[in-house]
Amino acid sequence: VITVQIIGTGKVARQLAIRFRESVLITLKAIAGRDQHACGNIRDLVSDTVICTDLDSLLSTDIIILAVTDTAIATVSDKIDARGALVLHTSGSVPMAALKNHKRYGVLYPLQSFSESNRVDWDTVPVCIEAHTVSDLDIVRTIASVLSPKIFEVTTAQRKHLHVAAVFANNFANHCFTMAQEICEKHTIPFELLHPLILETATKAITQEPDKSQTGPAMRGDKEIILAHLETLDTEPKEIYRVLTNAITHYYGRKKL
Amino acid sequence: VITVQIIGTGKVARQLAIRFRESVLITLKAIAGRDQHACGNIRDLVSDTVICTDLDSLLSTDIIILAVTDTAIATVSDKIDARGALVLHTSGSVPMAALKNHKRYGVLYPLQSFSESNRVDWDTVPVCIEAHTVSDLDIVRTIASVLSPKIFEVTTAQRKHLHVAAVFANNFANHCFTMAQEICEKHTIPFELLHPLILETATKAITQEPDKSQTGPAMRGDKEIILAHLETLDTEPKEIYRVLTNAITHYYGRKKL
Repeated sequence: VITVQIIGTGKVARQLAIRFRESVLITLKAIAGRDQHACGNIRDLVSDTVICTDLDSLLSTDIIILAVTDTAIATVSDKIDARGALVLHTSGSVPMAALKNHKRYGVLYPLQSFSESNRVDWDTVPVCIEAHTVSDLDIVRTIASVLSPKIFEVTTAQRKHLHVAAVFANNFANHCFTMAQEICEKHTIPFELLHPLILETATKAITQEPDKSQTGPAMRGDKEIILAHLETLDTEPKEIYRVLTNAITHYYGRKKL
Repeated sequence: VITVQIIGTGKVARQLAIRFRESVLITLKAIAGRDQHACGNIRDLVSDTVICTDLDSLLSTDIIILAVTDTAIATVSDKIDARGALVLHTSGSVPMAALKNHKRYGVLYPLQSFSESNRVDWDTVPVCIEAHTVSDLDIVRTIASVLSPKIFEVTTAQRKHLHVAAVFANNFANHCFTMAQEICEKHTIPFELLHPLILETATKAITQEPDKSQTGPAMRGDKEIILAHLETLDTEPKEIYRVLTNAITHYYGRKKL
């Protein structure tokens, strides 16, 4: 059995804790967090065998997982005495080397957008792993295998690019959905009308590759429709429309507007 | 039984034909198209009772559906003699009035992204309907009900905005997925890693509303990460990154970069 403690009480910490609790391979010994209220919430969730503590009274465990905000990782890492434990962070954008004040360190990055409320379906979540030594990579792989069957070895450099790609795939695509919602609401059209299209867009991007499933006025270079669309839009969606239309037109080898 | 003929042999014509063939309410009498090869393909698909013809030898049917490109609708409409039939087009962006040279006209707009290959799951496709008269709207509703249980009355003005919203939800979101794919490929990261995130993004946009499920550096106003991301990008994705980050930051009430 591998003993683990988690530092952090946010979304990732919570989902890790739930999953670890179900595993016979892992004993989750403690969760550490500054916020007493958050600690209370997470304790309820993961049963009374888990002690909520602070950074000065860490237990001795095989693994310490820093599931804290990106900007806090280096600071928290500097504060803790790992006592030989393997220290991992869970961030997509922080280099593994942020933990290099410890003897043993690595990364366990679950690539999914976590919610406060919903329980994550771990079996579908790709987990990106990295470690400073080959033997620790094996241990990180074991921990990752408890979370998900989809394990990928990803270097710090690749992870940085992957995180940028995830911003496009998640945050930016989602903002396009938000703009669509705004337009619908402004013109009293039920946003529900677009639900099937949104699902189909994602499904096609996965099954046929996104660049092969593109359609629409920008791809066709249909200037008349494009200009008519631009006329209907407020300043901010208009700029997004213009930039993305130019990008699509350019991508598919047509002339820019 | 309502008799129908379709003008057009493209994706929408094809999917309409397949669905109509299954219905006892509708007899698909003819499909008209210029392109003999496309006619051959579609005839195979919808059985030998369907005659492929040209615009000068239209049969007499209750309904004529113009499933042709947006830019061809007015031209084709002007060319045909409807002989009292109800004439419908299937476009999201063309006003109903483009058909006003006929006595009876309306719109049957299925809001989904159709593929050449895949068979569309009609039961999930919202169908937007409009007609010049109340009695013809009832007929359009009957036709629409053969296609899908999801029928929405949408005016020409609303349909225009809906089409713009669909461009955001489909074309623009899909281009964000394409940019994500490009970044992955450039850095030899399997794009597969982002598949679950893409599906989750769409699912959350539908179940929790997109503006409520936004996350990421732009929404957090995390300048350090944003600048680090911008540094990694080529010119074109960089401009998209900048514009969408500003838009998100602004949308959630933070200061622009």
